[in-house]
Amino acid sequence: MAKELRIILGIDPGFGRLGWGVIRASGSSLSCLGYGCIETHSTEEFATRLALIDRELALIIEKYNPTDISVEELFFAKNVKTAMQVAHARGVVLLRAVNHCGNIFEYKPNQIKQAITGTGSADKKQIQFMITRILALEKTPKPDDAADALAIAVTHSAYIR
Amino acid sequence: MAKELRIILGIDPGFGRLGWGVIRASGSSLSCLGYGCIETHSTEEFATRLALIDRELALIIEKYNPTDISVEELFFAKNVKTAMQVAHARGVVLLRAVNHCGNIFEYKPNQIKQAITGTGSADKKQIQFMITRILALEKTPKPDDAADALAIAVTHSAYIR
Repeated sequence: MAKELRIILGIDPGFGRLGWGVIRASGSSLSCLGYGCIETHSTEEFATRLALIDRELALIIEKYNPTDISVEELFFAKNVKTAMQVAHARGVVLLRAVNHCGNIFEYKPNQIKQAITGTGSADKKQIQFMITRILALEKTPKPDDAADALAIAVTHSAYIR
Repeated sequence: MAKELRIILGIDPGFGRLGWGVIRASGSSLSCLGYGCIETHSTEEFATRLALIDRELALIIEKYNPTDISVEELFFAKNVKTAMQVAHARGVVLLRAVNHCGNIFEYKPNQIKQAITGTGSADKKQIQFMITRILALEKTPKPDDAADALAIAVTHSAYIR
């Protein structure tokens, strides 16, 4: 039986920096199609920054036409103000995602660590090492936000395999 | 000199219930054009609820074509989970608002109470009483979320007068 092809967009939600990564998954065969980071600057108005995130994300979705969108769940950070800003941005991300396709999947940070490294307590370096290896990349994806986003996409591929 | 006419959309951000109210302001002369509450249900997916809020809000903005959009700032509630959900919805609201017009204004709860009743410690009943009076309404706007949204719109009219 032919394995179903999925194009998975992983998103590491953020306000100043939002990581994204796209993989192609056919069963256990994975490849990286692209990754990057949407940045917004504090010199801009809050709502303008949300609009920028939305526009950039729309271009990424248009380019890769993902079948599945995998988004990290928010961790209740110590810094409530930052967490609230990220939640605003995450609302914009979910809206764009649901308007593209209904296939939204959410994973907790420890689920992602577990899926990528086999332990829920892995650090960023381990995640980056494993993502580079799993996707057979020539170099470690930078910035960290992009590597995390690829990890979120790969996590989803493991759950649906 | 003719007073400038403003159509102000006030929004009381929420996830399960989002209050909205539209007023017409020409200097100190105010009138109510409409108000209501967008409700979403917990039986729906999270992202679907955000999309519903976005669609309903788009219809309201299309109908009233506001010149100014006034949104309550988020209060860091005791219930962090609820606050985070509201922040997701508020992100969607700000995105829709900035895509309609750049005129977004944010007011803190105590600024709103102060502007409407003269005291930052007013309760909901006082707000409702004063809004009914200021806008010469025949009856108190219901639900509370709609009355709060009108209060947010009236607050903005007081700041720009």
